[in-house]
Amino acid sequence: MNAEIITIGNELISGSVQDTNASFLAERLLSIGTEVTWMTSVGDNESDIRDALQSALRRSDVVLVTGGLGPTPDDITAEVAANTLRRKLILNEEALNRMKELFGNHGLRMPSNNEKQALIPEGAELLLNPVGTACGFMVKEEKKFLFFLPGVPRELARMADEGVLPLLQREKGQGFNFNTTTLKVFGLTESRIAELIEDLVKADEAIRISFLPNYPENHIKVTAKGFNDQKALKRVSEMAEAIAKRLGDCIFGRDDQTLEGVVGDLLRSHRDTIAVAESCTGGLISKRLTDIPGSSDYMKRGIVAYSNQAKIDLLGIPSSLIDRFGAVSAQVAEKMAQGAREHGKTVLGLGVTGIAGPGGGTLEKPIGLVFICVADKRETFVTSYNFPGDRAQVRLATSQAALDLVRRYYLK
Amino acid sequence: MNAEIITIGNELISGSVQDTNASFLAERLLSIGTEVTWMTSVGDNESDIRDALQSALRRSDVVLVTGGLGPTPDDITAEVAANTLRRKLILNEEALNRMKELFGNHGLRMPSNNEKQALIPEGAELLLNPVGTACGFMVKEEKKFLFFLPGVPRELARMADEGVLPLLQREKGQGFNFNTTTLKVFGLTESRIAELIEDLVKADEAIRISFLPNYPENHIKVTAKGFNDQKALKRVSEMAEAIAKRLGDCIFGRDDQTLEGVVGDLLRSHRDTIAVAESCTGGLISKRLTDIPGSSDYMKRGIVAYSNQAKIDLLGIPSSLIDRFGAVSAQVAEKMAQGAREHGKTVLGLGVTGIAGPGGGTLEKPIGLVFICVADKRETFVTSYNFPGDRAQVRLATSQAALDLVRRYYLK
Repeated sequence: MNAEIITIGNELISGSVQDTNASFLAERLLSIGTEVTWMTSVGDNESDIRDALQSALRRSDVVLVTGGLGPTPDDITAEVAANTLRRKLILNEEALNRMKELFGNHGLRMPSNNEKQALIPEGAELLLNPVGTACGFMVKEEKKFLFFLPGVPRELARMADEGVLPLLQREKGQGFNFNTTTLKVFGLTESRIAELIEDLVKADEAIRISFLPNYPENHIKVTAKGFNDQKALKRVSEMAEAIAKRLGDCIFGRDDQTLEGVVGDLLRSHRDTIAVAESCTGGLISKRLTDIPGSSDYMKRGIVAYSNQAKIDLLGIPSSLIDRFGAVSAQVAEKMAQGAREHGKTVLGLGVTGIAGPGGGTLEKPIGLVFICVADKRETFVTSYNFPGDRAQVRLATSQAALDLVRRYYLK
Repeated sequence: MNAEIITIGNELISGSVQDTNASFLAERLLSIGTEVTWMTSVGDNESDIRDALQSALRRSDVVLVTGGLGPTPDDITAEVAANTLRRKLILNEEALNRMKELFGNHGLRMPSNNEKQALIPEGAELLLNPVGTACGFMVKEEKKFLFFLPGVPRELARMADEGVLPLLQREKGQGFNFNTTTLKVFGLTESRIAELIEDLVKADEAIRISFLPNYPENHIKVTAKGFNDQKALKRVSEMAEAIAKRLGDCIFGRDDQTLEGVVGDLLRSHRDTIAVAESCTGGLISKRLTDIPGSSDYMKRGIVAYSNQAKIDLLGIPSSLIDRFGAVSAQVAEKMAQGAREHGKTVLGLGVTGIAGPGGGTLEKPIGLVFICVADKRETFVTSYNFPGDRAQVRLATSQAALDLVRRYYLK
């Protein structure tokens, strides 16, 4: 079975939006052993969509189409699909009712142009969208499968994992297993990781190891090439263990785990609480910690001390200390962490101060210089960093290093 | 003149690398008035590359091909191009000498497999690569232009801007102008926007209007189709003004502007300062405000009051008020805004409390219920919202609505 992806939208071919759906789908399909051989993007244009569909049907067993299922006049995918496949467009009651329900839940009347989103080709099977109004549909045409999915990446991702992949697996007569594992690394460069595992990469020809930089993290994806039977799964798992052993505690998580989730689990399992005092990250660390549902169990408060006065008022930092060492210093980071936990009456305090740029750097304290401190009742652990990159990169790397310092606090 | 892009590489169709070259090239081409209508990705495979080239030549005046020009055996683009166009591969002395020179500059002898990179189809024009060994080439075939460029994004970018665009501009006999404007909207659904400007969309056939949902914003891109002369620019600007008039103050910015940037500009130009007290957004509002370089001029502090005790301690909210109305209430949002500005000694205070989910919702106070307040010395402005979606969406929409309320404070 080979597959092909067609992404539809003027925003894609004009270059104003980067298409991420095609590579996402290709990766998911490969994880169940189905290879993608062509990707095509066309605009919201009848003849181009038709030509793309016809070419794809000639070449491939499975065709995934994304985009153009919205309510506006330029959304014509369903209509063109019906014409191309010589089928009528039929109003799908289930899709219509679901949309009305969604609008109703928010006390809204469904605008009449949304009705069009319930029209799907005759004989097509509805694919429910758990997170949006645009449903998808699947058409079987002479042993070939055509999937039509919305273009919103978040919606597409859910529908691919919950609708498309299980359905394809069933057709192939296989159990539904992902034959892939991702290891998530922080604190090693891509080239250093490559050096450390070079021999492992070469050891098993049936295993593909891909490096996926995901700033400031590096992800290592281990996939069995073209198979997802039990034997393949075992080999993937053995390879993942071998890599994990090499990279040690620089691996903070796997697959869907996030660093903020891992840190949250550690705090929760130790029945600890935390308060955060941050400066250059401006709220990003608190934001990441509270991204996790239920984080109010351990995350009690955050202070964004974006002025010296805020550091003095809210964290009890002596102004003489700021005068003497500067707001960006190990001493201030330490007092921020201690102040956060004392004022917040929490077990841990996290303090972060640094220079995110583009202004504010000096020869002595350049842009990217950051001090991070974790404090408990007894001790403080301060580390300094020198992050490369622009403002957004420095802030992201700082939030990552701060969360990682909390994780490593529990490794001791 | 319409154009088409073919990107070549197994890493692209397997999904392990996200193709950024196609959208980069499309945007650059559109900026000189050349529209891209198709994008195709295929693997390093002779028959697929040939089919993609033949289809593109049938459809388009300009074809840009990237990837497969390296020295390894899987780099077959030049060879397949020569076969497809029925031309011989010829050793280009200039390309060869340049490569030898590059290696020589680093004290290295050129490996023999690099020689292959100097083979280009007969009659092709060499395109120099200022930042790498892989040269590109241009073939003119029956009034059609085919450009072959390396796949490394940094090299491609230089060669597009210094080689491809000037050459195409010369062929078209035009000056260099951007012919596009983007309007950014918050507070109207995509379908409502479509209703409001439906007649405008139809009024000028030479203007393309694209809807780009960018949750929780909607962007409207206005582009002149295929032209970038002064007349086209004038029509783009007239259309943008007509749309802006219809959508009124729901348009918060244009092109590269962000809501946090617009709010920052307003605060700065009024010489105002702000303090933020947020609960359900957990630091996201402070983070967005401080994404802007120089924001410490007006953003003084943020309080992430993730527990009732934090609201009492840091914002002076009476615990009786929380008991009486609940932490998620208009009354608490108001006190949060007032407490933030009073404790922070700022001109404005922003207070936000709500239920982001997935837990914590009740029949009376469901997930997505949010109260936002802007306070100045004299008054408070409280608004309540009911946002749909999951935790991440509710938090993002809340941060957007909060920043938008500050923007609207200045519209009064």
